[in-house]
Amino acid sequence: MEFRDVVRKRHMVRDYDPDRPVPAEIRERLLEHAIRAPSAGFSQGWAFLVLESPDDRERFWQSSTSPEQAARMDDWLGRMRRAPLLVVPLSHKQAYLDRYAEPDKGATDRDESRWPVPYWDVDTGMAALLILLTVVDEGLAACFFGVEPDRHGPFRQAFDVPEGYTPIGCISVGYEGSEDKRSPSLKRGRRGVEEVVHRGRW
Amino acid sequence: MEFRDVVRKRHMVRDYDPDRPVPAEIRERLLEHAIRAPSAGFSQGWAFLVLESPDDRERFWQSSTSPEQAARMDDWLGRMRRAPLLVVPLSHKQAYLDRYAEPDKGATDRDESRWPVPYWDVDTGMAALLILLTVVDEGLAACFFGVEPDRHGPFRQAFDVPEGYTPIGCISVGYEGSEDKRSPSLKRGRRGVEEVVHRGRW
Repeated sequence: MEFRDVVRKRHMVRDYDPDRPVPAEIRERLLEHAIRAPSAGFSQGWAFLVLESPDDRERFWQSSTSPEQAARMDDWLGRMRRAPLLVVPLSHKQAYLDRYAEPDKGATDRDESRWPVPYWDVDTGMAALLILLTVVDEGLAACFFGVEPDRHGPFRQAFDVPEGYTPIGCISVGYEGSEDKRSPSLKRGRRGVEEVVHRGRW
Repeated sequence: MEFRDVVRKRHMVRDYDPDRPVPAEIRERLLEHAIRAPSAGFSQGWAFLVLESPDDRERFWQSSTSPEQAARMDDWLGRMRRAPLLVVPLSHKQAYLDRYAEPDKGATDRDESRWPVPYWDVDTGMAALLILLTVVDEGLAACFFGVEPDRHGPFRQAFDVPEGYTPIGCISVGYEGSEDKRSPSLKRGRRGVEEVVHRGRW
């Protein structure tokens, strides 16, 4: 698809056809594109947990949702659970601190105050966006959503994820279902270019 | 251009043709695409400082580079300064804390511990990536680089940027020059899909 059409068509979709799995070659293309994201110092401090079997997906929903959330978001969860593929991009701060301690960078103290911008999260977010865009290019649908802070621990435990890795969210992927509901947040309206762009000075 | 070609061709370029400005319609397309990035709760807590005149660009380089850096990076800076357009994407944490204090989200305490992932930076990074990709689609070249922590203050002061806005980096844009030098970091090699992907569990 033309790049600009991909950008215009991208939006979050929250219902999936449970009978149409994501073809393996498309799943792999999502991942091949993800690792082409830029990264500070070419650190590439990221990981991707790919969940496809019904058991693995159920383990994700169980571990990442508290009972109160599950009750409150029953409708949302019911539709999201139909997604045949989940990809959890994880950021890895230590990989960046270690990379910048190498001789060509020289930050051997690994001092976090050198990092007013957490590029481990930013770069992993860019990889996530490449997955979201590739999904559109392949004619599928996706949603990127966060994992509640109090569920990071249970999620890590459920999948043996090491402590230093942070799930920056989860991407549900599949063919669009018939019951998608757009986010109520969209009522806020998009902020236009002139509202957010400052030319020459603030 | 086909989406997948844009993804494959994207790379950082560090020299620009000083005699070819960025056409106005391309500059605007970069910005129109940037604001199509996803954002948590549709917060859209971002801003973009666009610098084009020689004076404005010089003010950026002066404020964002310490004399020691300038001496150390003389060669790099000499080539980067040729870029006819600079776009500084800025993240705005408060916009997210305020958005999630609204009735539909209810986090009225604006407690930052609810945010193990700083979506203000992640979302603004996604907007930056849309600019980088659009640059490739338009046949131009760009580089995304960080602003050193000790220069955030001088940079803000130089352009009257309010305290709550963080420059997540700067994107230099132009037509590719003849003296581009690839980053030495690339010698590290790209981490392959099998190295970073975990299937089913860690």
